Amino acid sequence: MTTEHVFDKALALQHSDIRAGHFTGMTSPDYWNMVGPFGGMTAAIALQAVLQHPDLLGAPIALTVNFAAAIEAGAFDVQATPVRTNRSTQHWTVQITQAGIDGAPQMTTIATVVTAARRDTWGTADLAMPEVARPDTLVRMEAARAGVAWFAQYDMRPVSGAPPSTWDGGGDHSQTRLWVRDAQARALDFPSLAAMSDVFFPRVWLRRAKPVPAGTVSITTYFHTDAAQMAEVGSGYLLACAAGQQFRNGFFDQSAQLWSEAGVLLATSNQIVYFKE
Amino acid sequence: MTTEHVFDKALALQHSDIRAGHFTGMTSPDYWNMVGPFGGMTAAIALQAVLQHPDLLGAPIALTVNFAAAIEAGAFDVQATPVRTNRSTQHWTVQITQAGIDGAPQMTTIATVVTAARRDTWGTADLAMPEVARPDTLVRMEAARAGVAWFAQYDMRPVSGAPPSTWDGGGDHSQTRLWVRDAQARALDFPSLAAMSDVFFPRVWLRRAKPVPAGTVSITTYFHTDAAQMAEVGSGYLLACAAGQQFRNGFFDQSAQLWSEAGVLLATSNQIVYFKE
Repeated sequence: MTTEHVFDKALALQHSDIRAGHFTGMTSPDYWNMVGPFGGMTAAIALQAVLQHPDLLGAPIALTVNFAAAIEAGAFDVQATPVRTNRSTQHWTVQITQAGIDGAPQMTTIATVVTAARRDTWGTADLAMPEVARPDTLVRMEAARAGVAWFAQYDMRPVSGAPPSTWDGGGDHSQTRLWVRDAQARALDFPSLAAMSDVFFPRVWLRRAKPVPAGTVSITTYFHTDAAQMAEVGSGYLLACAAGQQFRNGFFDQSAQLWSEAGVLLATSNQIVYFKE
Repeated sequence: MTTEHVFDKALALQHSDIRAGHFTGMTSPDYWNMVGPFGGMTAAIALQAVLQHPDLLGAPIALTVNFAAAIEAGAFDVQATPVRTNRSTQHWTVQITQAGIDGAPQMTTIATVVTAARRDTWGTADLAMPEVARPDTLVRMEAARAGVAWFAQYDMRPVSGAPPSTWDGGGDHSQTRLWVRDAQARALDFPSLAAMSDVFFPRVWLRRAKPVPAGTVSITTYFHTDAAQMAEVGSGYLLACAAGQQFRNGFFDQSAQLWSEAGVLLATSNQIVYFKE
């Protein structure tokens, strides 16, 4: 007997009209994050709708997800539309809506996706993976946290920049390096890579050692990998690094990179995050 | 007599139905870039439509522009739609279309914009401006280049990582640092900051010292500034820094930062770029 992975359960979409790009799904209690779904899961769902569309050309290059409003627990609709198809690239819009009190659809999430048929070319890495301790020498973060069920779905092992143990206002940097993989083994794919690009706790918490309200407003992830390379990664750890760049008047940005344990830069991701006070 | 600045001429939009967010514009020969408009100008136009919309809330936080197809010389339509308005943030979609051969609208550009009413909060810079030579000690790049009219609209003074003088395949890094301002003095604003976020020549040319075909597919810019701060910058130089991170199978990403001469990080920007061979 095989049991479906929690991530695949959360990612499951039904298609009422697949050629029209219309899907329906249900929020997952396994990936809940205080007032709504874990943003990485929402990003994965937006991408999944594109990947399941019968008109898909190639594989994901870029994913931008704008979190317009909290998604309520329950059913949602996903509309994925290929708005422009070229010879080797395709441009998508994705919208996630939920029925409001009056039954009318309420926009919760606006995403764009670029996919492409990639060809072998010259290539090089201009950002080397930092030399850090290997995951088997590090301790997994405590996974049981009130209100943040999604946290238990990941095996995260901080190298540096762990959440402050005391909130004493004494922070002096905003850089975190941690190893991450699904807690229950699962082979890496584009949706899980999209989700893992958003596993970082808010940089402002680390920078200030102060847990102020914060939430991602928009995330953009670029994919530098393909199915064959991800098959080599399998269910192994990724080194996930993130740092804030500028904090000002209620928003900060975060620059992030995800490497395979073998040192391949699989994805680079940026986000802009709201914070209070 | 005052003459309208070339940037403002290129940015000019007529509104046939401003409450519906429908605008029309004309491509500018002054900002032409080989096969289409300078991408930074297209980004500025997408943002301008939002800024001119009567329902605008706050100021720009994030701008993502997906270049779906080349824009032909001539007229274009811009549709800016506020798809979700919250108490302090607003989410927009922008689409630029042109009439195709059969007269039907062809999608050329898909953008999303987040605007917000920002409040004074705690803040800090976690990315210091590099210490570099001041612009008045540096030489302006040759502005007359065949096919790239937009180049002449900027006064660009490379600190390091100038375009290779010989295309000998001998590149060994992808980082450029340059000072930039409008060649004809113009006070900085959000559209010009959006445009200047895209002034870099393709990183792959520098990295390989080889001028292969290349073009931006998607750019995302985060704005860390406001009108008052930009008024202090005025028509001064910005230090614009860009580096590639990963080059693989026809695409590379570029991470960029723009500082004021006083050392304020005004914008951070990322893009993913197609290249050949």
